Amino acid sequence: MNTRCLDERFRTVWSALAKQRPLVYHLTNSVAMNFQAQIAVAMGASPLMSLCPSEVEDLAKTADAVLINIGTPTPDSETVFAMAIRAAGSVNRPVLLDPVGYGATHFRTQLVDRLLQEGHVALVKGNAAEISLLSGQEASVRGVDAGYAPDPGKAVFDVARSWNCIAIATGPIDWVSDGERIWSVQGGHPYLASFSGSGCALGTIVAAIVAASRLPLEGALTALLAYRIAAETAALESRGPGTFPSALIDALHCLTQQGFPPVGERVREIIL
Amino acid sequence: MNTRCLDERFRTVWSALAKQRPLVYHLTNSVAMNFQAQIAVAMGASPLMSLCPSEVEDLAKTADAVLINIGTPTPDSETVFAMAIRAAGSVNRPVLLDPVGYGATHFRTQLVDRLLQEGHVALVKGNAAEISLLSGQEASVRGVDAGYAPDPGKAVFDVARSWNCIAIATGPIDWVSDGERIWSVQGGHPYLASFSGSGCALGTIVAAIVAASRLPLEGALTALLAYRIAAETAALESRGPGTFPSALIDALHCLTQQGFPPVGERVREIIL
Amino acid sequence: MNTRCLDERFRTVWSALAKQRPLVYHLTNSVAMNFQAQIAVAMGASPLMSLCPSEVEDLAKTADAVLINIGTPTPDSETVFAMAIRAAGSVNRPVLLDPVGYGATHFRTQLVDRLLQEGHVALVKGNAAEISLLSGQEASVRGVDAGYAPDPGKAVFDVARSWNCIAIATGPIDWVSDGERIWSVQGGHPYLASFSGSGCALGTIVAAIVAASRLPLEGALTALLAYRIAAETAALESRGPGTFPSALIDALHCLTQQGFPPVGERVREIIL
Repeated sequence: MNTRCLDERFRTVWSALAKQRPLVYHLTNSVAMNFQAQIAVAMGASPLMSLCPSEVEDLAKTADAVLINIGTPTPDSETVFAMAIRAAGSVNRPVLLDPVGYGATHFRTQLVDRLLQEGHVALVKGNAAEISLLSGQEASVRGVDAGYAPDPGKAVFDVARSWNCIAIATGPIDWVSDGERIWSVQGGHPYLASFSGSGCALGTIVAAIVAASRLPLEGALTALLAYRIAAETAALESRGPGTFPSALIDALHCLTQQGFPPVGERVREIIL
Repeated sequence: MNTRCLDERFRTVWSALAKQRPLVYHLTNSVAMNFQAQIAVAMGASPLMSLCPSEVEDLAKTADAVLINIGTPTPDSETVFAMAIRAAGSVNRPVLLDPVGYGATHFRTQLVDRLLQEGHVALVKGNAAEISLLSGQEASVRGVDAGYAPDPGKAVFDVARSWNCIAIATGPIDWVSDGERIWSVQGGHPYLASFSGSGCALGTIVAAIVAASRLPLEGALTALLAYRIAAETAALESRGPGTFPSALIDALHCLTQQGFPPVGERVREIIL
Repeated sequence: MNTRCLDERFRTVWSALAKQRPLVYHLTNSVAMNFQAQIAVAMGASPLMSLCPSEVEDLAKTADAVLINIGTPTPDSETVFAMAIRAAGSVNRPVLLDPVGYGATHFRTQLVDRLLQEGHVALVKGNAAEISLLSGQEASVRGVDAGYAPDPGKAVFDVARSWNCIAIATGPIDWVSDGERIWSVQGGHPYLASFSGSGCALGTIVAAIVAASRLPLEGALTALLAYRIAAETAALESRGPGTFPSALIDALHCLTQQGFPPVGERVREIIL
């Protein structure tokens, strides 16, 4: 696939968003929740947040995609998240799982393993250390920040293959695989790693684009590119990690209105 | 009432705020909570957030007004919110109810209906679709965003009359009724609809002004006008939906210090 | 100790932060949580938020410091917070307690009293009214904002002595004591008191510096100075209380990169 074809694909996938205003049901952590909501609205999606078991099934069946982020879990998380996964699965809606802090505590590791066994997770997105640990590699995690990850390219491939999903590992370079092929995505700005909730917000973007396009792989690549392209603009309008997040929202909103630019060398297929 | 009289009224109601630093007890959702707190502080009110049943009654009795927003409900919400309504009612403090997502799930619809039956809700504020559904009209809701609402002017009138309260329906035009008369409020900027939590923050402003002035109808109109006037200033200082919310806080703070300007054609009484 | 010696001390304590990327485990309120996370990341610390009893002990033992902020308590707070204090104590990690709303409700007062009796709290940081009440002085509190506090200098001294900890009382002037001596810290900008979560964020800064330096007293003084110095820069880059918090994050990040400036007359030892 040559670059011009890819550009055309990304532009088509991205434009699905503006047409549909997809409803993205977030079962997410209480730290990044507000930022995720702002990101979703800015790109033309409709976010809805609830952890209430009394309405989880209704919401998961109504939404165009379900995002599960385990950043601030509770003792009920396994039950509630599993309800959402099953309900979404029953109506064939995509589920994205963000295993925040996988490996940081036994509780989180076990929670993620059980959710994956539900079998309806279409996309798994974590930082490189989380995805590497999930793939069975040796990696180091401390807290919820990125730790050491020796081979994230192989990690996404293995996770995608094991769980029959699209796997995304984020970091200075992002890695994506569908279990057949592997892509890397670059560009952006170091400020993307300078604030809390950056990875969570990327989850929202992926879920929104997949919700609108129903194309998990191309949706994931388009989302990763959109985030990095928006970050390049936002960095010019900010003075540090405090003013960057709101500039990023502005830039993403602008990208939604102006359409997708050529992606250049930012994305590459990797030959193993 | 001519426009000059109205201007004088709004100025008086608004100035009550600066004199009193009213304590507004928020039982609210976890997405907009921080923004609501910032809005309250910027306009000279004192926000307090807690959903803890062990202190709900103490707080509801101490506060100058109670705001209940069902945006992220829990299985305990009905019990906790009802405790707050009764405690506030027992000491004659105004309660504002924001029925976020009314109609989106059976759980939320039932929750709101039961809270209204407590009989101590002084103000109901929702988007046009929520208030229209509450009034018994056919309207469409999907998620927590505004949907289709055929006649919000009649809806606020009917809700105000049914529940003996001030009803407010927000949208491109806001509608307010006390069950006798109907007003519309216009102005502002499209950015007001471009970020998550905008309606929730308006609830905070209404509750704070009513807390300070003890005038539910004039307080509501003053709050709606203040939000739109501040938005007009904030839009000039922002580059998009990301930078707009903090500019809006700045503008509201400025309005608190500089006093209320003439409102011009922004508010009108509607003759049915 | 002359001023030049002090400057050297603060510079050394501050520089410990950049070297270590300390993990600060926050058990904190849902209003300020996001801002605290941003502040931590901007200064080079690694924040982790969780209130989940299934992982509290693991996290408290892994972290370099534990911050407990009771701003939005739940019925489980006493159990969960006590677990964190004991776990941190068992591995000799510092615990900072922020008694938000002490005196505002019976529930909060009792919660704080019980947590202090665990005996492992290294630092207590509150506004002047909270710390004054905690010291047994007559003071007035309404909600969670600062009320009336007659003698915060004596209050920090008494609290530090009673609980064998570093006590910090914030306000237009901050007061710090280790139970032997008392310091005051000044400077900054009135905007520091103009937004919700300002005191909570200061707790994060204190905890992060103490985590990195393992020096509770000098860490506390350095943190108070850093916050006020950053605020002076941030005020120049903001237009009001809405744009100030993100400018404050930028300024704190800048201070982390550029090193600690001379503190001048901002800090003084008080002779009783």
